Amino acid sequence: MNDNQFVPPQDAFTRTVAIRFSHCDPAGVVYFPHYFDMFNGLIEDWYTEQLGVDYSKLILGDRHGFPYVHIETDFKIPSRMGEHLDLTLLLTRIGRSSLTVTIVGHLAGVERLRARLVTTMTSLETQRSVELPHALRQKFEAYLRLTGQAQS
Amino acid sequence: MNDNQFVPPQDAFTRTVAIRFSHCDPAGVVYFPHYFDMFNGLIEDWYTEQLGVDYSKLILGDRHGFPYVHIETDFKIPSRMGEHLDLTLLLTRIGRSSLTVTIVGHLAGVERLRARLVTTMTSLETQRSVELPHALRQKFEAYLRLTGQAQS
Amino acid sequence: MNDNQFVPPQDAFTRTVAIRFSHCDPAGVVYFPHYFDMFNGLIEDWYTEQLGVDYSKLILGDRHGFPYVHIETDFKIPSRMGEHLDLTLLLTRIGRSSLTVTIVGHLAGVERLRARLVTTMTSLETQRSVELPHALRQKFEAYLRLTGQAQS
Amino acid sequence: MNDNQFVPPQDAFTRTVAIRFSHCDPAGVVYFPHYFDMFNGLIEDWYTEQLGVDYSKLILGDRHGFPYVHIETDFKIPSRMGEHLDLTLLLTRIGRSSLTVTIVGHLAGVERLRARLVTTMTSLETQRSVELPHALRQKFEAYLRLTGQAQS
Repeated sequence: MNDNQFVPPQDAFTRTVAIRFSHCDPAGVVYFPHYFDMFNGLIEDWYTEQLGVDYSKLILGDRHGFPYVHIETDFKIPSRMGEHLDLTLLLTRIGRSSLTVTIVGHLAGVERLRARLVTTMTSLETQRSVELPHALRQKFEAYLRLTGQAQS
Repeated sequence: MNDNQFVPPQDAFTRTVAIRFSHCDPAGVVYFPHYFDMFNGLIEDWYTEQLGVDYSKLILGDRHGFPYVHIETDFKIPSRMGEHLDLTLLLTRIGRSSLTVTIVGHLAGVERLRARLVTTMTSLETQRSVELPHALRQKFEAYLRLTGQAQS
Repeated sequence: MNDNQFVPPQDAFTRTVAIRFSHCDPAGVVYFPHYFDMFNGLIEDWYTEQLGVDYSKLILGDRHGFPYVHIETDFKIPSRMGEHLDLTLLLTRIGRSSLTVTIVGHLAGVERLRARLVTTMTSLETQRSVELPHALRQKFEAYLRLTGQAQS
Repeated sequence: MNDNQFVPPQDAFTRTVAIRFSHCDPAGVVYFPHYFDMFNGLIEDWYTEQLGVDYSKLILGDRHGFPYVHIETDFKIPSRMGEHLDLTLLLTRIGRSSLTVTIVGHLAGVERLRARLVTTMTSLETQRSVELPHALRQKFEAYLRLTGQAQS
């Protein structure tokens, strides 16, 4: 049995990224900083499409920021131009002002990379962390219930 | 005392990156995937300028790859357009085919971010890891002696 | 009447790009090099989805390149995070080994930017231009018939 | 005689860019949007290092923007990892609120690419173009005298 096997929890938020020419380096595989850009895009889409929260309004309207404070990533199998990589977002932890998400990149049931990202909600005016608003916290908790226990 | 204080070991490889307009996002700070691109550039320069190994020949000539297998990063203080961020490369561990480096981003003696990156030397032909060549290992060991104990 | 009005020809290839946080700069609008990356992605999708030609096989399998030899772009109206920009690809000219495409970025019927890109088909082995293969030329001509006269 | 020969005017602003692994695509040459990022960086450095104007203060302090309204580029010879590309900035035209610069990429006396970029000074508050301030115009005119006639 392949220990890289990955089956996303039912109802977990998954989006497929087409690996493009522009993602790849002279070795023919994705240049790794592009994965972090894909993660950020996935989180943006998760807010908007899954939680029903317009991410751009959170930033531009409410003047909130979501800087990353910690990121850990394991790169297991490289991806190549023409492949379609599935990215699944799992919730790991809901803190007072922070949120920890796990993003798993997988293809055909095999895990290719896994990242844990800790982000903190801040005010762009004061640059300080702010408590997660109640309505947002409820949406996070609903997603956690939907996708199962917090993932490590 | 500020626990973010950072004094690089004497003789450690440090390069300064001018934070540009293009690095920054609508929140006015560096968009985080750019840091990973800066790390890769620093490692490239370290091979060429510090170790005297032409990194492009390692890739294009000898057909070696240096994919990252694990990355951990703590983002402590954001950086803004017009600032000059110092990046210092420390060696953490020399393995059989892998190398672990710690990169500290600092400005005016204060640590802003810290990353640990594990990279494995591979053959681009076989896509498998290869043992670090003796000459390269000696250069890594010399740098380790120059900059002090392995850093965690 | 607004002279920036734009109605794409019926059956023209159009894809919508969500303008993301990561596309935008401290001025809050798309940092212009990202548009060129979007253009390249649109052309890639046009080959694969409209013409039925797997672009990654053209590059990786047949070892062809499609370098740009000339690009002209007019930027008329900036785009912001949260907007959805439509990109329409029109054929301008089919040469012996070159192809000229016009890409129009538009939103709600108003043209925001327009680019003309000349690309040449090359062999990655010889680095020289090659004549467009007959089958590919036929697909280009069919798209030209579908979308009307060559556009300037 | 090679009609791609290029000798920059004496005293023209030139900076060298090390072509990195990260700039290059699976075809082994610079992925073209990176050139536009290099152009923007060159212009930024030209303001700060040549004209003595802190570009970040113009943006963040004075709240000015310098969006591009038109760009034309000829790509003549591709560049590869490990090469050092010289970029020279020439002034083409000083308008009421716009500035046209020509950037030539060259290596060992041979021109590899040439771009003409028209930028307009705007107010980030009103999003409208503003007249170039007198002090800035004088600096542009001094650079024009230094490097010879306006270039086409």
